[in-house]
Amino acid sequence: MLTLGRNARQASRVMMGATDQAKSAALRAMAQALQDRRAALQAANRADLETARANGLEAALLDRLTLSDKALDTMAAGLAQIAAMPDPVGSLSNSSLRPNGMRVAQMRVPLGVIGIIYESRPNVTIDAAALCLKSGNATILRGGKEALQSNVALGAVVREGLLAAGLPETAVQVVDTPDRDAVGHLITMTDYIDVIVPRGGKGLIQRLSAQARVPLIKHLDGNCHVYVDADADLEKAHRVAFNAKTYRYGVCGAMETLLVHQDVAASLLPGLGQAFTDHGVTLRGCERTRLLLRQAEPATDEDWGSEYLGPVLAVRVVDSLEQAMDHIARWSSGHTESIVTEKLGTARRFQREVDASSVYVNLPTCFADGYEYGLGAEIGISTNRLHARGPVGLEGLTTYKWVLEGDGQLRG
Amino acid sequence: MLTLGRNARQASRVMMGATDQAKSAALRAMAQALQDRRAALQAANRADLETARANGLEAALLDRLTLSDKALDTMAAGLAQIAAMPDPVGSLSNSSLRPNGMRVAQMRVPLGVIGIIYESRPNVTIDAAALCLKSGNATILRGGKEALQSNVALGAVVREGLLAAGLPETAVQVVDTPDRDAVGHLITMTDYIDVIVPRGGKGLIQRLSAQARVPLIKHLDGNCHVYVDADADLEKAHRVAFNAKTYRYGVCGAMETLLVHQDVAASLLPGLGQAFTDHGVTLRGCERTRLLLRQAEPATDEDWGSEYLGPVLAVRVVDSLEQAMDHIARWSSGHTESIVTEKLGTARRFQREVDASSVYVNLPTCFADGYEYGLGAEIGISTNRLHARGPVGLEGLTTYKWVLEGDGQLRG
Repeated sequence: MLTLGRNARQASRVMMGATDQAKSAALRAMAQALQDRRAALQAANRADLETARANGLEAALLDRLTLSDKALDTMAAGLAQIAAMPDPVGSLSNSSLRPNGMRVAQMRVPLGVIGIIYESRPNVTIDAAALCLKSGNATILRGGKEALQSNVALGAVVREGLLAAGLPETAVQVVDTPDRDAVGHLITMTDYIDVIVPRGGKGLIQRLSAQARVPLIKHLDGNCHVYVDADADLEKAHRVAFNAKTYRYGVCGAMETLLVHQDVAASLLPGLGQAFTDHGVTLRGCERTRLLLRQAEPATDEDWGSEYLGPVLAVRVVDSLEQAMDHIARWSSGHTESIVTEKLGTARRFQREVDASSVYVNLPTCFADGYEYGLGAEIGISTNRLHARGPVGLEGLTTYKWVLEGDGQLRG
Repeated sequence: MLTLGRNARQASRVMMGATDQAKSAALRAMAQALQDRRAALQAANRADLETARANGLEAALLDRLTLSDKALDTMAAGLAQIAAMPDPVGSLSNSSLRPNGMRVAQMRVPLGVIGIIYESRPNVTIDAAALCLKSGNATILRGGKEALQSNVALGAVVREGLLAAGLPETAVQVVDTPDRDAVGHLITMTDYIDVIVPRGGKGLIQRLSAQARVPLIKHLDGNCHVYVDADADLEKAHRVAFNAKTYRYGVCGAMETLLVHQDVAASLLPGLGQAFTDHGVTLRGCERTRLLLRQAEPATDEDWGSEYLGPVLAVRVVDSLEQAMDHIARWSSGHTESIVTEKLGTARRFQREVDASSVYVNLPTCFADGYEYGLGAEIGISTNRLHARGPVGLEGLTTYKWVLEGDGQLRG
């Protein structure tokens, strides 16, 4: 692993100065190689699938593991799309001329070396490598052991693209050992890795968070709330809340708790509750909710703290905006929070005072996604306070350095 | 410590929504209280000084510990200055209207709760509290035990200012126990503290870095280089290099190694070396340097890696720009690096490819300072890659959240 780290650090120096022309050419060459090497990729993938079947991996995971023609086409299209995005590196901002005549500015630069730790989705190998490469970083990829052969084969495709564009082949390295210690090394190699982006379930993120010395760009939970205010348009509230829950149960921006102001609970909840029940969503409610929704089971503190990621919803009737914001402050995971209201002052207060990486007005929480925000692509979502927050695109994989230019000015 | 943490988190919620009017009023009230409570402050300080003298603290440290009339005046002036600075919180940027009509923007917001861990300079208590407060954060301050009485008395002044402005008095809390475990708690209370800014020597920073679970905004070393290129104006190079070393030996931006291109070494070094020697700077050189500077002792790898923070300078003659950049890549601490050259392409390449938080052209490295960069004030200098880099001002104590506003748009 130390060799991988040293290689990556060296490659990172070259990548920092690489032109967008070279980086985009590498990405397009990779897309081409994905087509040309299809037979070899699918053969490697079949080996993984056979082992996985023999180990009794469940159908959904087998599906994610499979490099079908369609999956490979999607990956190639993703590469072409990322190649066409504007390069964030090198732009200057906050430039000022100081009183002594020297110029001060901030230049956007790559983070350096990024580690990606993920589970058994081989498409992440290509997607993550592409985003890191476009933003000028060197990358070390460590996927799940179930996808090892597939990832090694995809790594060869990536190297082919890098070499075709005259970039160092160690700019993207795939860890080719199933050894579990590899992860332990990656997350503590602070000299060689600048940031880790973990992609996977809560268990993985928790384990990495507890042990990492390298900073992580991550979110643990998406315990997202929609608060329907006393001044909400109730028809809009119904649509927003329903979409926030049912767009997809498994996305981290899915609503997990609905908060409703007491003044509108009796008008909103019976119809909305029925719609959820008809859609197969189980409801858990506070006492006041259960007076209006007989089908709701009693909600406990465990419900307020749960990211169900499934067809279950907690519902609470609150006295006021303040009580809604107190509930959110106590239970929110800082991911995405939304208010439905027509009143300007209430919207402004909620947006100002709620502490989360994304705060919405009159929108379902399921909009939490880099494409929806206009970032073009997304490496993940962060609930960190430092550095990138919310959906993280290319710019979140960069940082800045100060560049000063003078003509021999002296200090003191 | 948990109580302090919980108080801070609660106060932070109020501070996030506080107006600049209130925050600035608190800072001005503190400046007034510093004048009004001068007798009590100096009495508490005398108690610290007596203990320190009894414990044989050295003169330089006693000097830093003393709350003289002048020191208190400087602190009050600093408060007034920070009060007058523009509030970074609440500004909106990168606002765009998405194809579906929803508005996406980033709102600048406070980081949350900031811990400051520092040594025995009581002025840090006021300076750090003021910067954190102005940027809307709650703060927990832990100074050196030698300054405990002084810091507790200053904490009372800060509380007086907060209360006068109607802000929660727990927005700034001074740890009032000399218990060393307090620091261990602070740096691991990830639920209650969002970031720690350590202010002190390398030993303190190293200890905290090894044990912290809370992210640190910090730099460990300032091993800064000036590279004099083949195309340098040698008169300018002489002035820049001399200033970079001698402006102040003890600042983290002081030059520690001078790199000189072989084509200009014979013209530059004898005169510049003599100037350093006359100024009392000891020189350590590579072999080629020592042919030109007989007074230089041989330099070892230890010299290339040293932040002397004193009147010692390492000097190396290099073959080329590439060799200079390789030397910097190997030995730099990522703080501040400078090139002296008149050639545009060389300057551009150095600025683009050298990986440090600040990269200069034709300027001495000792400009590394928030005031010089136009930040108005500085909480410290960061060599981190994530979040704030280089001199960290008010904006570095904030982050952003995404704010989205719609009219019931749905996803999918």
